[in-house]
Amino acid sequence: MTYNAPKNAIQYLLTHVADMKTLQAHPTHQDLSDELVGDILNGALAFAKDVLAPINRAGDENGATLKDDVVTAAPGFKEAYKAYCESGWQGLSAPTEIGGMGLPQVLSIAVNEMLYSANMAFGLCPMLTASSMNAIHAHASDELKNKYLEKMVAGEWSGGMNLTEPQAGSDLGVLRAKATPNGDGTYAISGQKIFITWGDHDCVENIIHLVLARTPDAPSGSRGISLFLVPKIFVNDDGSLGKANSLKAIGLEHKLGIHGSPTCVMEFDGATGWLVGPENRGLACMFTMMNEARLFVGVQGVAIGERAYQGALNYANDRVQGRVIDTRAQTPIIGHPDIRRMLMDMKTSLMGARAINFATANAGDIAKCTSDDDARKAFHAREALLTPIAKAYGSDIGVTTASTGLQIHGGMGFIEETGAAQHYRDARIAPIYEGTNGIQAIDLVGRKVRRDNGEAMKALIADLETIVKSANGNTELDMVVNGLNTGIAVLKQATDTILAAEEKDALAGACAYLDLCGDVVSAGLLLKSVVGGIEADDAYAKTMKILLDYHALTILPRAASRLPQIIAGATPIYDFPVNQLEDL
Amino acid sequence: MTYNAPKNAIQYLLTHVADMKTLQAHPTHQDLSDELVGDILNGALAFAKDVLAPINRAGDENGATLKDDVVTAAPGFKEAYKAYCESGWQGLSAPTEIGGMGLPQVLSIAVNEMLYSANMAFGLCPMLTASSMNAIHAHASDELKNKYLEKMVAGEWSGGMNLTEPQAGSDLGVLRAKATPNGDGTYAISGQKIFITWGDHDCVENIIHLVLARTPDAPSGSRGISLFLVPKIFVNDDGSLGKANSLKAIGLEHKLGIHGSPTCVMEFDGATGWLVGPENRGLACMFTMMNEARLFVGVQGVAIGERAYQGALNYANDRVQGRVIDTRAQTPIIGHPDIRRMLMDMKTSLMGARAINFATANAGDIAKCTSDDDARKAFHAREALLTPIAKAYGSDIGVTTASTGLQIHGGMGFIEETGAAQHYRDARIAPIYEGTNGIQAIDLVGRKVRRDNGEAMKALIADLETIVKSANGNTELDMVVNGLNTGIAVLKQATDTILAAEEKDALAGACAYLDLCGDVVSAGLLLKSVVGGIEADDAYAKTMKILLDYHALTILPRAASRLPQIIAGATPIYDFPVNQLEDL
Repeated sequence: MTYNAPKNAIQYLLTHVADMKTLQAHPTHQDLSDELVGDILNGALAFAKDVLAPINRAGDENGATLKDDVVTAAPGFKEAYKAYCESGWQGLSAPTEIGGMGLPQVLSIAVNEMLYSANMAFGLCPMLTASSMNAIHAHASDELKNKYLEKMVAGEWSGGMNLTEPQAGSDLGVLRAKATPNGDGTYAISGQKIFITWGDHDCVENIIHLVLARTPDAPSGSRGISLFLVPKIFVNDDGSLGKANSLKAIGLEHKLGIHGSPTCVMEFDGATGWLVGPENRGLACMFTMMNEARLFVGVQGVAIGERAYQGALNYANDRVQGRVIDTRAQTPIIGHPDIRRMLMDMKTSLMGARAINFATANAGDIAKCTSDDDARKAFHAREALLTPIAKAYGSDIGVTTASTGLQIHGGMGFIEETGAAQHYRDARIAPIYEGTNGIQAIDLVGRKVRRDNGEAMKALIADLETIVKSANGNTELDMVVNGLNTGIAVLKQATDTILAAEEKDALAGACAYLDLCGDVVSAGLLLKSVVGGIEADDAYAKTMKILLDYHALTILPRAASRLPQIIAGATPIYDFPVNQLEDL
Repeated sequence: MTYNAPKNAIQYLLTHVADMKTLQAHPTHQDLSDELVGDILNGALAFAKDVLAPINRAGDENGATLKDDVVTAAPGFKEAYKAYCESGWQGLSAPTEIGGMGLPQVLSIAVNEMLYSANMAFGLCPMLTASSMNAIHAHASDELKNKYLEKMVAGEWSGGMNLTEPQAGSDLGVLRAKATPNGDGTYAISGQKIFITWGDHDCVENIIHLVLARTPDAPSGSRGISLFLVPKIFVNDDGSLGKANSLKAIGLEHKLGIHGSPTCVMEFDGATGWLVGPENRGLACMFTMMNEARLFVGVQGVAIGERAYQGALNYANDRVQGRVIDTRAQTPIIGHPDIRRMLMDMKTSLMGARAINFATANAGDIAKCTSDDDARKAFHAREALLTPIAKAYGSDIGVTTASTGLQIHGGMGFIEETGAAQHYRDARIAPIYEGTNGIQAIDLVGRKVRRDNGEAMKALIADLETIVKSANGNTELDMVVNGLNTGIAVLKQATDTILAAEEKDALAGACAYLDLCGDVVSAGLLLKSVVGGIEADDAYAKTMKILLDYHALTILPRAASRLPQIIAGATPIYDFPVNQLEDL
């Protein structure tokens, strides 16, 4: 159950999908030498392999525990967290003005994929800290920023996001937690929050909670929600820690997977909080960082899939069973066509989803760098468009590849000690949290495609067409070019359908549309990387081209099969009488 | 977490896919009145709902335990098993000459789907007993039959199948367990067997093990394996129980799911066994019943999927979250298009797989009844052809539907208390045991399609064409007819490709071919049921037609997308250098 980052693949996609060279050439990232990039990737690889991977199984078996109001992290997690902070990983992509390294997000994505592969349950703690930190940085007063951010960037204090309540999940508009003014500028926060990832634990001295709650006269619904900073322990003006705030974890969920990550029921009992951003604008402030968190969940899908792939590959190389067709000699099972086929399925789909993740982060990075307003707007739109695809497509592939990895293990895959089952369990959360994949599809179709009348999507399609054109003339790429031409035509037709449809019809086809986008865009990005790799004489362009051909053979053909549902809209879904769904 | 069998759906498919009427008209089943069929289904429904479903969660949470060489079943299982025997379920489809009811297997399939839905872990015990019983009935001496079968048919003694060893899983040819003649006609059996489902437990007084082992001078490989009957407790000539045999469970596996089913490591330490069937023909004897067991695993897939569907439907009806598009009123989540879409996905794929299960059993039933040699041969071939499809397609659908069911629960799905996670875990074994789905695909392509030069498959395709013809003229069925015509054309092309291919190429496309068969055959069978249902004025033909249309919209289109891989064969799978699979 070792882990080794696929460093060549990651480096290749950083170069030929994310175009690190252009980023490095920009003044913002002028210090980001090839050597530094290499050092960061090597450092992350070593940390993931040597520190995080070895405690992944213990985290699953023992989980975190809650006793006497205190959550104790799984065995080894506290020590690993200390090492994580000391190595400075938390501040990797945090802005330089708050003490971060200010590196491009795409590099952070690459690093975090490794950490999540090694230990997804662990990786959620830094992710929550980063999200909270970014929200505070973007929306809080200078006083709050000065008091909290430095320690958060260092990882000394972690962050917590308190959104969900039992009756308020996907629909936060109905949340009930209360924020009553104390008269001194602070608020008394009361209410119960559930599903709070790393909501309490003993790896840090303080936890900075962001909490959504309603002020007394707030309007009902999502326009009456405000965001508050609520520290676990009060921080004195000199930065030292004071007494405890009135909040605690009152329960830990008994989950299918990611047992090493404590999922807390948090009770706020008149806890003192400070407003972050304008009153009643809490949801908007929260959504600023939700997009980033969503991309990171797509990365988790690829990460778990990659780990499952490595486990399956090792097992397939080690397990001797049966005989090869040609010589009838005994063979490790990798010698059987169907095992090799499953490995190719996993590898290809993971590379496609990884390319989408990198392209999403890259768009955000360029938007941050550029001084051209139109370009910034276009790249922001691209980032926004790709985010739900990265989240849903990546997390779905995490589940399917973890399942395939388990299958390669045969009967041993069903035995927990092998580790394949843990990946199958861990991976299953990613299509759910940070907005279910159904919510992502609604986001894609509603906010990202229909709201701008398809402008961002049409720009993406135009880019895909440019990529295809750049490959014309290389006859070795004919199969892919033909497949992509078909795929792009399907995507155009589907986009026109979505744009012209009634809302209900568009939503009925939303998931199929998102999957179609994933199939086609991943092929386009991999083709871009192959064309670029060939031009640059990159030694890995050859193997990437083999994966791309396999994509064109097995994944791209699915695109067209998704079209009928998109075109048909809501009618076929609602035809079956709802009161007969129980039987026939 | 209640369960209610989809009785109308099952009854409908029994009538219009399995053609129960024809079976009932046959002398073999002349006592099988409509009333009796109804009573059996109602009885099974009540037993599943009232006895088995309520202990399913406790079985998952507590599992079976091993202490002091004794396996104790999960809480409530012993009492439920007693009730199972008293109700006479074990002998349902067992031959009348050994005390069974001799009912058609398709009825047994219908009953067992309900039992598996309610409690899959429990259902494995009767399944193992039935398989062992059938093997003994088919191959053992009269003496052994007289001694053991009556108690097994009654369920008083259960059966165990001891095949797998640590080094011998899919390839049983390399197994090492030894059988040394004792000189008195019996053998001393020694060796370790793993993954022995219900290998030991306290629900019965005796367990009749069938064990594969090698006699001293047996040829190496699969031609040197013999089958032995090895009772846990010796049986005296008067039928009373004697002393214990030299075998015991020395370990229980820690599994991902089906915790209520003890998966034992069995140690045979010179245990006394009796030869079943000819020496060195053990594998062939074992495979007689393996086909039946495989069909039952396909049924398990549908069963778990059905339970997951019911849980998801209940949750979708109860959980209020968000607002409907039209009125902006608060709504249970079933009011959201994507939730309804997921329910339709589940329902439709389950109905398709169920139809394949019923058709498979039905072919076997007709083969048993008919006095026409050619017909018997043809129906046996049909049963053999459909069995790997039923097993693999049904078990894969079990996993995907359980996953979708969990997704519908959102965050609650990831919490074990909801029960959705148990289905996701339980379902995952079905694609693995009784021959992995990769092995099923090899069986389909090798033994079932290529060995008879495609004869059985061509007969199936001809039947599908007849079904399509019977629907011509009903314009309401146009969409399905068009989709099926395309699907059949694809299936023909794929079959020709498989028949003409080199073995390695055929095996590389085997899984895609099996999935393609599942997509097309399920549509064909559902169309048959709709045409038949309309003709018979069956009230449920209307809703079944809605599911069929949804199948044509979402499942049938996938068929064509599987063709490129079948045509491409092994090359794309082997192109990627095996020593570079680790990275790029």
